[in-house]
Amino acid sequence: MSKGILIVVSAPAGCGKDTILEQALKANGNLYYSVSATSRAMRPGETDGVSYHFRTREQFEQMIADGELLEYTEYVGNYYGTPKKAVTDMLDAGKDVVLKIEIEGAANVRRIFPDCTLVFILPPSFAELERRLHKRGTETDDVIKQRLETARKELEFAGNYDYLITNAALEDAVDDFLAVVRAEKCRRSNREGVIGELLAE
Amino acid sequence: MSKGILIVVSAPAGCGKDTILEQALKANGNLYYSVSATSRAMRPGETDGVSYHFRTREQFEQMIADGELLEYTEYVGNYYGTPKKAVTDMLDAGKDVVLKIEIEGAANVRRIFPDCTLVFILPPSFAELERRLHKRGTETDDVIKQRLETARKELEFAGNYDYLITNAALEDAVDDFLAVVRAEKCRRSNREGVIGELLAE
Repeated sequence: MSKGILIVVSAPAGCGKDTILEQALKANGNLYYSVSATSRAMRPGETDGVSYHFRTREQFEQMIADGELLEYTEYVGNYYGTPKKAVTDMLDAGKDVVLKIEIEGAANVRRIFPDCTLVFILPPSFAELERRLHKRGTETDDVIKQRLETARKELEFAGNYDYLITNAALEDAVDDFLAVVRAEKCRRSNREGVIGELLAE
Repeated sequence: MSKGILIVVSAPAGCGKDTILEQALKANGNLYYSVSATSRAMRPGETDGVSYHFRTREQFEQMIADGELLEYTEYVGNYYGTPKKAVTDMLDAGKDVVLKIEIEGAANVRRIFPDCTLVFILPPSFAELERRLHKRGTETDDVIKQRLETARKELEFAGNYDYLITNAALEDAVDDFLAVVRAEKCRRSNREGVIGELLAE
């Protein structure tokens, strides 16, 4: 069986990456989401082991010490990281794995898995991003202003990504993402051995 | 308007590339097929300007002399080539262009358009390829044997292609091809300027 492929998705807050991934995972039965670990507090509506693996700071630091994380980073005072074993087990089993990581973590994953695919979700415009953040109604104007500033900084790293998907219409963005996954499965570097097998016939 | 992308498809005879492209062109309204020119004789069922631009040897050599071809090659005693202007006009107009070229011509196009996408269609197996060639009933056993030998040689060049699509089930192969085109539209190198435009807001 051939190994699965690893896709890393990054996006500024409000670009709709959670919804895009949710719908893509429903549509592609071989695509699995690898849940990140974090030391931040659980928010209303979140579930441990689904939204994140929620850990205390001490527990998280023990995972770091035990080498259990593929990558980790500290972000706005909290740890975020990717448990290693879950990812490698799924890839070895031929499952395609998607990770949702901010830009620094994505760059770290790329160092460990040079063949992984990096996808960046873009807003159609900053005006629209601001509108969406206001619409969520969960953040104050100051926090929104800060998120927009962060988005600008993150966008400067989008040039390191393999694919840029603009989330103007959700359905199109989901189809773009599914196409990227499907195309990557056809990429020569992900089909090593197929020509040799045919020629060996 | 952003420029279109250029996709070059190669496949050994009997791998179904004509049917795959026909269905893909129906499904993607921005994808255009650029008709090749050839000096070989028209076959029953073929139409000038649709299957190929049929030219005499002398006319073809005039096109070469006038620099009207993107690439050309001689194959089994006949010229095959890609008219340049049709391709560049479509790309400039934002249309995505697909070319159907054998391996040597594909390598030449890549030299001229380094950003083009190379897709190779594979048979599920040589046994199945042989069965399909017999099923067509248009060639003698000797010709089929020769085509299978040629297919083996062509396959050795598939390692230069960006994507390998196995045509085991036609519908899946068409969907793979459409996914490749859609994903390539999202590829960062084909979306130059989008990040700058957002940041300039």
